[in-house]
Amino acid sequence: MRKENDRIMLERVESQMRNYIDELSNRDISKLFEKLPHGKRLRAKLVLKIAGMNEEAVRLAAIIEMIHAASLLHDDVIDDAMMRRGVASLNATEGSKQAVMMGDILYSKGFEELTSFNPLIASRVASAVTQLSIGEMSDVWLSKKFHSDENAYMQMVYQKTAALIEATAAAAAMLAGKEEHIYALYGRNLGVAFQIVDDILDITQSSERLGKPSMHDFEEGKTTLPYIYLYELLDEEGRARLKTLHGKKLDYEAREWIRTMMVETGAVQKAFMYAKELGDEAVALMRGVGENSLADIAAAMIERDF
Amino acid sequence: MRKENDRIMLERVESQMRNYIDELSNRDISKLFEKLPHGKRLRAKLVLKIAGMNEEAVRLAAIIEMIHAASLLHDDVIDDAMMRRGVASLNATEGSKQAVMMGDILYSKGFEELTSFNPLIASRVASAVTQLSIGEMSDVWLSKKFHSDENAYMQMVYQKTAALIEATAAAAAMLAGKEEHIYALYGRNLGVAFQIVDDILDITQSSERLGKPSMHDFEEGKTTLPYIYLYELLDEEGRARLKTLHGKKLDYEAREWIRTMMVETGAVQKAFMYAKELGDEAVALMRGVGENSLADIAAAMIERDF
Repeated sequence: MRKENDRIMLERVESQMRNYIDELSNRDISKLFEKLPHGKRLRAKLVLKIAGMNEEAVRLAAIIEMIHAASLLHDDVIDDAMMRRGVASLNATEGSKQAVMMGDILYSKGFEELTSFNPLIASRVASAVTQLSIGEMSDVWLSKKFHSDENAYMQMVYQKTAALIEATAAAAAMLAGKEEHIYALYGRNLGVAFQIVDDILDITQSSERLGKPSMHDFEEGKTTLPYIYLYELLDEEGRARLKTLHGKKLDYEAREWIRTMMVETGAVQKAFMYAKELGDEAVALMRGVGENSLADIAAAMIERDF
Repeated sequence: MRKENDRIMLERVESQMRNYIDELSNRDISKLFEKLPHGKRLRAKLVLKIAGMNEEAVRLAAIIEMIHAASLLHDDVIDDAMMRRGVASLNATEGSKQAVMMGDILYSKGFEELTSFNPLIASRVASAVTQLSIGEMSDVWLSKKFHSDENAYMQMVYQKTAALIEATAAAAAMLAGKEEHIYALYGRNLGVAFQIVDDILDITQSSERLGKPSMHDFEEGKTTLPYIYLYELLDEEGRARLKTLHGKKLDYEAREWIRTMMVETGAVQKAFMYAKELGDEAVALMRGVGENSLADIAAAMIERDF
């Protein structure tokens, strides 16, 4: 029954997004929009669960999902990603220029609609998007060479992934007159944990399961948290080998070695414990204010294997 | 003396922009920002002349120039432009991905700061950016094949170029408590006329003067207003020849033919008269409210040969 309600709520967000796009009165844009994958709509779910099912919440959820979709479009251009959630990316099917332009349209329409909200809410979301775009830049700079700087990595993850989820939860709380800082912290923890779990799944899951090549992060130069821990835990020889593999196409032997070492050294487990602690804190925060449904989202996110 | 004042006013805008960028606390971003060309800062001048020299006006001017710079960065990526105002574009020197990311950062920081203004002002500017991004998309779609659709072209020019100038003037008027609609119309006319003059200069000026290859618009598939008029004014044979030249690298003979026909048929003159009428209306609007300095900007813009 609750699942059914969730579905109906999210359908209203989808329809609000389509309305915003149709307001642009451009058939080419509407057609491109239809081609975008819907994803999990995590941010929309958070808004609706925190702010309740009302027109303003649906609008805010739609705006944030448009902004998120814009960031994914540009992310795929910047990462040369050909796949997104198991299907060819817009970047791959329509070309990177269309992806840049469609991203700009979704960003700007999102911002335009955001200005109809309380300026404190608008500012909270807008400032998270600045963090997101800085995070994107840091991600690229950090990928230029092998590094083992955990702090730099965690700051990038906060900016690129967690800041918008944090702002989503905070903005929804402001809309509902709830205590902003609790929800902000919940969102921040959820976002960072989400990214670390993603980083782990990139190593432990098969390409089929991921809907994109596995260990692709490391191949394209990204030294994610499990790799930073692996580097710390390896001996000199292992460290040297890991560094030579960085940023290159991995063969079967290299993949197997990384996978084995990730388990043997406990690097994956250590990264998972980091994510789990954040997740547990998020769960506890929400149980504390009787938000069981939000607590369940955090718990399920940690336990997911996909 | 007035020129000296203008220079001092614009320097405050430059310094406000640098402050906004430095607030991002990222050295790589600050360095990239320093590499961006400053341009004419037309939008900043409009804000300061309409809203006066005060802190809010300087902030608004800086925000709009950041948004404009972002749009140029993405425009260069989408057009594969290697030159911008006579120097290599960021797209050329740092690569298109850096240009996409830097554009996103300037857009998002601009929007973030915009939310500190009266929501009516924020909304006016934000909605123009949506128009701008739709205009960018229309420009690309219109360039896919030869067309002679004057209305489609004029709508694209309004969206891509004039909407932000219109919103700039309107937002500055709102800030100063002046009559919004007069300034909006002034900005709209100025913007459309500006683009048409640009389209003409692309045909009549040398590459050295333009700081980019001349007749590049037509080579990359853009059927601008002078070409639309030329098509209308040519005979069947001429039309067929024009169509075969569209969207290709032009040789010396083709360039000379286009240049000659543009003058002989009166196509360039007709486009210029269109721009001049809009410019004259903009001048008259400003003389009517005693804004001689703004009137002079419109007059000079029409007469420019660069």
